[in-house]
Amino acid sequence: MVGVPGEAQPALAAAASAALEAYSVATAEHDRAALAEVVGDGADGTPTMRIDVLVENAILNALSRHSVNVLTEETGWVDNGSALTLVMDPVDGSANAAAGVPLSAFSAAVAVDGSFTEALTVWLETGRSWWAKAGTPSPLRTTGRTSLPGAAVSLLRPHPANPGAASAWWEVARRAGRVRILSTSCLEGALVAQGATDAFADAATDTHRLVDLAASVVLAEAGGGAVRDVFGRPIGLDTDLTRRWSGVVAASPELADELASVLHDAYETGRTTPTGPGTPT
Amino acid sequence: MVGVPGEAQPALAAAASAALEAYSVATAEHDRAALAEVVGDGADGTPTMRIDVLVENAILNALSRHSVNVLTEETGWVDNGSALTLVMDPVDGSANAAAGVPLSAFSAAVAVDGSFTEALTVWLETGRSWWAKAGTPSPLRTTGRTSLPGAAVSLLRPHPANPGAASAWWEVARRAGRVRILSTSCLEGALVAQGATDAFADAATDTHRLVDLAASVVLAEAGGGAVRDVFGRPIGLDTDLTRRWSGVVAASPELADELASVLHDAYETGRTTPTGPGTPT
Repeated sequence: MVGVPGEAQPALAAAASAALEAYSVATAEHDRAALAEVVGDGADGTPTMRIDVLVENAILNALSRHSVNVLTEETGWVDNGSALTLVMDPVDGSANAAAGVPLSAFSAAVAVDGSFTEALTVWLETGRSWWAKAGTPSPLRTTGRTSLPGAAVSLLRPHPANPGAASAWWEVARRAGRVRILSTSCLEGALVAQGATDAFADAATDTHRLVDLAASVVLAEAGGGAVRDVFGRPIGLDTDLTRRWSGVVAASPELADELASVLHDAYETGRTTPTGPGTPT
Repeated sequence: MVGVPGEAQPALAAAASAALEAYSVATAEHDRAALAEVVGDGADGTPTMRIDVLVENAILNALSRHSVNVLTEETGWVDNGSALTLVMDPVDGSANAAAGVPLSAFSAAVAVDGSFTEALTVWLETGRSWWAKAGTPSPLRTTGRTSLPGAAVSLLRPHPANPGAASAWWEVARRAGRVRILSTSCLEGALVAQGATDAFADAATDTHRLVDLAASVVLAEAGGGAVRDVFGRPIGLDTDLTRRWSGVVAASPELADELASVLHDAYETGRTTPTGPGTPT
């Protein structure tokens, strides 16, 4: 659908609306260099671009009227003593958004007493949205694919200097029928949930933060899919934003398990074997 | 801009409008399986999906009132004895369009007596368009980047079973700062022309047909960029759609030359060296 769904939890809806408005103003008022300028370090330990700050500040301002806790990329953990926490990436795909590649998203999940119960991802350039609430019927439906050979898989970009991760990336490219790199984890997760692609994965680089995965957990599960970590770590509410995962979002639990296993095995092989995709030539 | 520009050559504008309308109807009336169904072989020698046929037929119908020659993916060369030829990909990124990944484009160039003089690429899911005419001032402006290390490069997906091409793909991934695979050559070319990415390349797989490159030649050159073939073949009007190129669209002539050279050298090394990214493990 286009826009913020009316059934969404009020704080989640307010955050998404503020993000859409702030993104629109930021991209109209600033050029690419200004949007991409690094203006600090986020609570997640990564450099913060101006576009991230502009959108996150607008969201936090909108949320001041809502009594919820917030876990967000730049500010980190804001404890308001609520049972409800928004786990939020104000601008997923910041590098796309700053450069003018029209693939970035607001994405957030609602956690109630530690469990993810609802999620909303909104494509900032078009307003198109993906929403799901645990226990509520959803129109989302994955492709249902259960095995990797021939699958359509989105991946984070490869890291050739990391032999294990390079080997893992290449092994999936070898087995998949189609590989994409859209550089926007939350949109790529939403595309799995709606059945446009079969899977999305971080090929063992431990790049994913909770804010990159939380919404995809709810959306993918609503559509019949599953989310795993390549190294078997559980993905749950954690207020330490420096934690990392290598997330796998897939159309079925079987495919999620197979992808995680293929990535894990190829990572271990690549770390210890001197030939392969990561080898300098 | 959004929509078909009013200054566009009338046959080009009519084709783009017909494509937008037909895409909208096709995706509303057919599910993913029906859109992706292979219904024949195109003049380019590749399988034709239903979505390709529906959009191309609508365009050819609209063009029946225009006296131009047409070179298009499925039908091939339609000679109407005109000095003017539309070189056209009705649905660039067919696999995206059929699957529901919202990245596909109508893309066409006008050739007058064999030279490309004008081009229009329209993002079918949003109506956003990129237009340029040789000799007319253009708002398009590439990033101007002149060297590969650290560049933002889009690539066609890797072909791990082709050792030369695998080596070429990986060498660019190693040198670039960011790699994307959007699976839509014409949109990726337009993003180079507008300065959102630094370059786009087919890593020596000879996948590109003229219809994948013609519009990007005009758009990139209007923005200060350049288009090359990895193997040095000139890219010009040719009515044989089975011809292939490994196209490089870049923000500057210097970057285009460097990318073509790096891809060519790595391709030759990969073909003759038993280790590297293409090596089965």
